Amino acid sequence: MLEMECKEFRSRFREELDRTVQFWLKHSHDREFGGFFTCLDRDGTVYDDLKYIWLQGRQVWTYCRLYRTVERFHRQELLDAAVAGAEFLIRHAAVSEESRKQAFVVTQDGRPVKVQRTIYSECFYTMAMNEIWRVTGVTRYQTEAVEMMEQIVRWVREDPASLGRPALSGAEKTNSMAIPMMLLCLVDQLEEDDPEMCQKYQELGTWSVQQILQHLQREDSVVLETVSTEGKELPGSQGRLQNPGHTLEAGSFLLKYAVKHGHQELQQTAIEKFMILPFEAGWDLEFGGLLYFQDVDGHSPTQLEWDMKLWWPHAEALVAFLLGYQVSRDPRLLQLFKKVFNYTFTHFPDRENGEWFGYLNRQGTVSHTFKGGPYKGCFHLPRCLYLCEKILDSLLQDA
Amino acid sequence: MLEMECKEFRSRFREELDRTVQFWLKHSHDREFGGFFTCLDRDGTVYDDLKYIWLQGRQVWTYCRLYRTVERFHRQELLDAAVAGAEFLIRHAAVSEESRKQAFVVTQDGRPVKVQRTIYSECFYTMAMNEIWRVTGVTRYQTEAVEMMEQIVRWVREDPASLGRPALSGAEKTNSMAIPMMLLCLVDQLEEDDPEMCQKYQELGTWSVQQILQHLQREDSVVLETVSTEGKELPGSQGRLQNPGHTLEAGSFLLKYAVKHGHQELQQTAIEKFMILPFEAGWDLEFGGLLYFQDVDGHSPTQLEWDMKLWWPHAEALVAFLLGYQVSRDPRLLQLFKKVFNYTFTHFPDRENGEWFGYLNRQGTVSHTFKGGPYKGCFHLPRCLYLCEKILDSLLQDA
Repeated sequence: MLEMECKEFRSRFREELDRTVQFWLKHSHDREFGGFFTCLDRDGTVYDDLKYIWLQGRQVWTYCRLYRTVERFHRQELLDAAVAGAEFLIRHAAVSEESRKQAFVVTQDGRPVKVQRTIYSECFYTMAMNEIWRVTGVTRYQTEAVEMMEQIVRWVREDPASLGRPALSGAEKTNSMAIPMMLLCLVDQLEEDDPEMCQKYQELGTWSVQQILQHLQREDSVVLETVSTEGKELPGSQGRLQNPGHTLEAGSFLLKYAVKHGHQELQQTAIEKFMILPFEAGWDLEFGGLLYFQDVDGHSPTQLEWDMKLWWPHAEALVAFLLGYQVSRDPRLLQLFKKVFNYTFTHFPDRENGEWFGYLNRQGTVSHTFKGGPYKGCFHLPRCLYLCEKILDSLLQDA
Repeated sequence: MLEMECKEFRSRFREELDRTVQFWLKHSHDREFGGFFTCLDRDGTVYDDLKYIWLQGRQVWTYCRLYRTVERFHRQELLDAAVAGAEFLIRHAAVSEESRKQAFVVTQDGRPVKVQRTIYSECFYTMAMNEIWRVTGVTRYQTEAVEMMEQIVRWVREDPASLGRPALSGAEKTNSMAIPMMLLCLVDQLEEDDPEMCQKYQELGTWSVQQILQHLQREDSVVLETVSTEGKELPGSQGRLQNPGHTLEAGSFLLKYAVKHGHQELQQTAIEKFMILPFEAGWDLEFGGLLYFQDVDGHSPTQLEWDMKLWWPHAEALVAFLLGYQVSRDPRLLQLFKKVFNYTFTHFPDRENGEWFGYLNRQGTVSHTFKGGPYKGCFHLPRCLYLCEKILDSLLQDA
């Protein structure tokens, strides 16, 4: 990448990050109960005061990471809001005192509304608690992170019973890519500058990588979202499902892991199979953009939203291709980064109010005008902008 | 309606019904285990052999109703397949022997894969069992229907605990329109030519009607999908949600009930508020067709599929407007019927293979090419075609 070009990209990401953080600072803080409103309309108006636990944890993480690592965000208002968010989570995320199981969504004042029989609320809680510990030094936060991590690993690798899912004779155990990807993300989070954690979670990291690689199927020609626990293709729609955005996200985590551990072959696999392959499969040649879901044999996916263009797969693709380029200097990755950048920056940002629209129809028209909802909060977008800015900083330093 | 016009419509519905039934007879029967494949591709190929319990019950009901009431469908192959389907359900729908709770989806050979914490599998089971009893006279089927109905009423009106939903302090009890609508449908099913059942379920019928009417809000200007158990509007996206197709479906049940019981005022309400109103709110003036979900205050619904055009709301609208016209002879209803007919018959039918596509994008282009999936089986479409043919028969007799 030419230095001028690199600077130009960096200023676009930086500017977008500033506008995005400003949006959440201005509109999302609940000054009464702590935590964040995430159902924000186009202009930031709160259209629902429910608090989605994934998004509470993610916003605490985002604020703390920015506070800790980006000088211009080392501001008291970010830290104060993150602490209020973390305290809200500690008080209200758990459904009962008997278990570590957390709610999916709670009322504004923290009473549980719905529980998912999955591990994601708890994963984002762990990320949040570890990151806020790094910022504040308060050991209670790190204790929460470490204890929850142990619970998550028990749910995944030993006994999922207390997640509340009934054991059903027709429900084969599966390896869903989201699970090992999430674990690899948590291992990466916990291990940063922490030799004790590196030691503790070394085996889990290796295991998570192996579990992710099991999704590479059909003589390494496709990545499937769900496989059997023996790493075989499953029958039916579930077995044929592809999620290009998820694959690209997993690609970034694999690549980061490969670089850290000096695994040359894994680095190559991450780039070729978890970045270039899902792009080739998932890019919509007719209208541009990454499709949300695909059936590997060309049937219609049963998900009604399969052909929509969502902000987060595009955010993940930007990170993946820029990271891939940084590591490999392979011009194909730079070209893909630019292609995704052009689509993304012409379709998603809201020039008028800041932040990005989250959902476009296949043709690229905005289908949902809100900035935040039950699954979109202050996370994928600012994390992408932050990571890309960092990588571009580093590329400029190298130049 | 002119007699010629009426005959023309009738022949279109009849022809479409024949093609639709032929499609399911040809492609959906599982001759090995009984029951029906419902994941059928455009040409009828099975793309997944999972069996969705709602759709098993619905197909048994459809076959039996056609066998019982339409001379040209009084054919052994429909009855045989219905019996095999009913026996499959009796053997495999329940998740365990301790409870009447049924699965949402089972494997081809009947092992449970997923359980929903709702009453719908059980409701369609009840419809199926009552209808097959009417056809076969086998009392075991009616016993299943009656016992399950009692369990459903206990879940809804007394104690939902055994559905498996945890009691959560932030989860306010709500009145979701689907529940009383489903109950009113079941009451109608069980009461046909059965004075004992009419007696038994009289109060439940009245209660269901009252519960449905609670959804008429804001000085009778809108119908909301979910209200409080006291019949008040709920806060947030949930409270503002409209589902025009559901409202039209409820309108048909209300109108049928009003006619049966000679309730003039309810008849008027059903037509004005549960047919004309949701059409005016839900018809897409830009591209035609009924929107799937709407937010009454104009925010974006959080459902990603809100702007899609689904086959079933259009099927329900055809039934509602034709029934409304039959009862009232109000020319507005005939006009709306024709408008919906034109959109529906130009967009949904598959001229090449028979049956209808289920899912179009907002612009009216087919987004999913399959004919059956996890939620689309042999039910809404043949039921609509059957009911419309019957009503047109009756209009022609009157003429």
